[in-house]
Amino acid sequence: MNDYQFEINLSSTKKQKPAFDQLVFGRNFTDHMFVMDYTEGRGWHDPRIIPYQPLQLDPSAMVFHYGQSVFEGLKAYLTEDQEVLMFRPYKNMERLNRSNNRLCIPAIDEELAVQALRQLISVDHDWVPNEEGTSLYIRPFIISTEPYLGVAASHQYQFIIIMSPVGAYYKEGINPVKIAVQSEYVRAVKGGTGNAKTGGNYASSLKAQEVAEKSGYSQVLWLDGKENKYVEEVGSMNIFFKINGEIVTPELNGSILEGVTRNSVIELIKHWEIPLSERKVSIDEIYEAHKNGQLEEAFGTGTAAVISPIGEFFWNDEKLVINNGETGEISRKLYDTLTGIQKGKLEDKFGWIVKVDEEKAVTSAI
Amino acid sequence: MNDYQFEINLSSTKKQKPAFDQLVFGRNFTDHMFVMDYTEGRGWHDPRIIPYQPLQLDPSAMVFHYGQSVFEGLKAYLTEDQEVLMFRPYKNMERLNRSNNRLCIPAIDEELAVQALRQLISVDHDWVPNEEGTSLYIRPFIISTEPYLGVAASHQYQFIIIMSPVGAYYKEGINPVKIAVQSEYVRAVKGGTGNAKTGGNYASSLKAQEVAEKSGYSQVLWLDGKENKYVEEVGSMNIFFKINGEIVTPELNGSILEGVTRNSVIELIKHWEIPLSERKVSIDEIYEAHKNGQLEEAFGTGTAAVISPIGEFFWNDEKLVINNGETGEISRKLYDTLTGIQKGKLEDKFGWIVKVDEEKAVTSAI
Repeated sequence: MNDYQFEINLSSTKKQKPAFDQLVFGRNFTDHMFVMDYTEGRGWHDPRIIPYQPLQLDPSAMVFHYGQSVFEGLKAYLTEDQEVLMFRPYKNMERLNRSNNRLCIPAIDEELAVQALRQLISVDHDWVPNEEGTSLYIRPFIISTEPYLGVAASHQYQFIIIMSPVGAYYKEGINPVKIAVQSEYVRAVKGGTGNAKTGGNYASSLKAQEVAEKSGYSQVLWLDGKENKYVEEVGSMNIFFKINGEIVTPELNGSILEGVTRNSVIELIKHWEIPLSERKVSIDEIYEAHKNGQLEEAFGTGTAAVISPIGEFFWNDEKLVINNGETGEISRKLYDTLTGIQKGKLEDKFGWIVKVDEEKAVTSAI
Repeated sequence: MNDYQFEINLSSTKKQKPAFDQLVFGRNFTDHMFVMDYTEGRGWHDPRIIPYQPLQLDPSAMVFHYGQSVFEGLKAYLTEDQEVLMFRPYKNMERLNRSNNRLCIPAIDEELAVQALRQLISVDHDWVPNEEGTSLYIRPFIISTEPYLGVAASHQYQFIIIMSPVGAYYKEGINPVKIAVQSEYVRAVKGGTGNAKTGGNYASSLKAQEVAEKSGYSQVLWLDGKENKYVEEVGSMNIFFKINGEIVTPELNGSILEGVTRNSVIELIKHWEIPLSERKVSIDEIYEAHKNGQLEEAFGTGTAAVISPIGEFFWNDEKLVINNGETGEISRKLYDTLTGIQKGKLEDKFGWIVKVDEEKAVTSAI
């Protein structure tokens, strides 16, 4: 199973862990990290696990100037039997390589990346939290590190994996959030980088998010950049609607990120034989459906929040309240099923779970 | 003139300087750098000049993940009288603050930034090269440094200035470049970040640049993201055409960067009383003008290259050769005038030059 050998340099001290019943999102990091370098001519080399530590980069390192970076987000969970499970890690590494391609970053070995994850989690296994709603959030990312001030693809990179024990992403948890439809700022456009997981997409979203928050809305609903008419994403999640009994989600059009949770939701909906359609969805259609009483549910999907029900849209000075502002039946069922599979409480009929299998990982590495 | 006091920590050793007659672009950096920190609640604080050194950042620092960064580029020149001149530094700092606004980064004090430049150049004045075509390229930039994995504006930043003695940006120098019109990939769209100088715009441009280079073209001509019809920029420069005696440049529409060189070229053209129009320019219009023999010149403008004549466009499988592939009269005149003013050889009628005035800078700081 594991032919990959990584150099492992264990930390001589261990950090104090935060209380696992009071975790916030993305503020605490484990004792170790994975690092691998890329040098033109040599390719990716020196995969290693080292103590979590600051990066030392020349101030001219290209990532600071030209934004050439990609990342992923996935989670690992502790079962009641103290096994650690990863959720669809190969999907994330596939997508990382699609993002790499768009950003002119050399591809990584996806199997190596998953094995690196396995080793890293094994080394820091006591950081996987066990409280309800918690998990170990994993952040693989690649940055361009060549010290050069010219607009071109870098000849040097670092692939890094860090991990953070996390609680719920939204303070509201599975409670419905209020969303403002954004029609001034644009997240992405066809031909741009919207379907790649790269920093620039997130940087450009901050302004609209700030405007929404000032009006009391926690997230932004993004419309397409060309016609400002079709629904694309919500915050940094994919979006689904239930309209008159049918589940509808925007089709992948080149400016929408192909979410792993989106894909899992689609598989579950199909498995449950609920009608589902991936197609263009205009904001006018959503408005009409609401007016006619057919907009039964709306929810965002993403690794961080899993399922985030939407209780209200604000658009054109009107508030559209959905399902009385309460979590809908499908949203709840999806959340329970996905988190049940992730935590090993429900049967994994889809082959989504990859066990960390610490013994194998550690034995083969040391 | 200078009420700003910076802590100055001089380097105990000096690097070996590259040969100033063999400089490349953006590979060598001076002995010192300027750094200032931002902390929520405290604002910008601790402006200081320190030896050029690596940045130490937590691997979760937001800049690596969510691309929240902005930058500027400007140049300083050595005159025959050994004076150091900066070209329109206040314009760059104004634009830095416009970029900051779009990227949700707290504004900097523009006067402080120019004084910081003055001090930094004074400390490293022997790095300003004197050979023909060389200059000291200055890179102010701001990065988000908070260690946090959530999509939100950072609460911590660093403002940094580094400097690099440079030769010509393009290997071709003032010689005309060949440009491929890009109709698959998009640089920016209205409502996005195209008019801010932020990493994501440059990251998203790399793929098209790579495709162009494979076909033997050195730069990409970008069309608008909505209709894929109107000319926006060329590579990372603004673009100008001379059509039937009139100078035409795309109007600032929200997705085009407002270049300092673009602005200077417009002022010169107006001063010379040559007809000029800032308006929408479609690629079809350029094609027709070429067919009718009215496309007399085309050139890019930017700090790095100053004026970059365009000798050929490739569009829809056709090669449009401009002015026999030679540098046009206006392109040459603009280049000579701008570089003449920058080097102090021509009178500065527009108030563009700011003298570094080393004595004042150094006296007030130490």
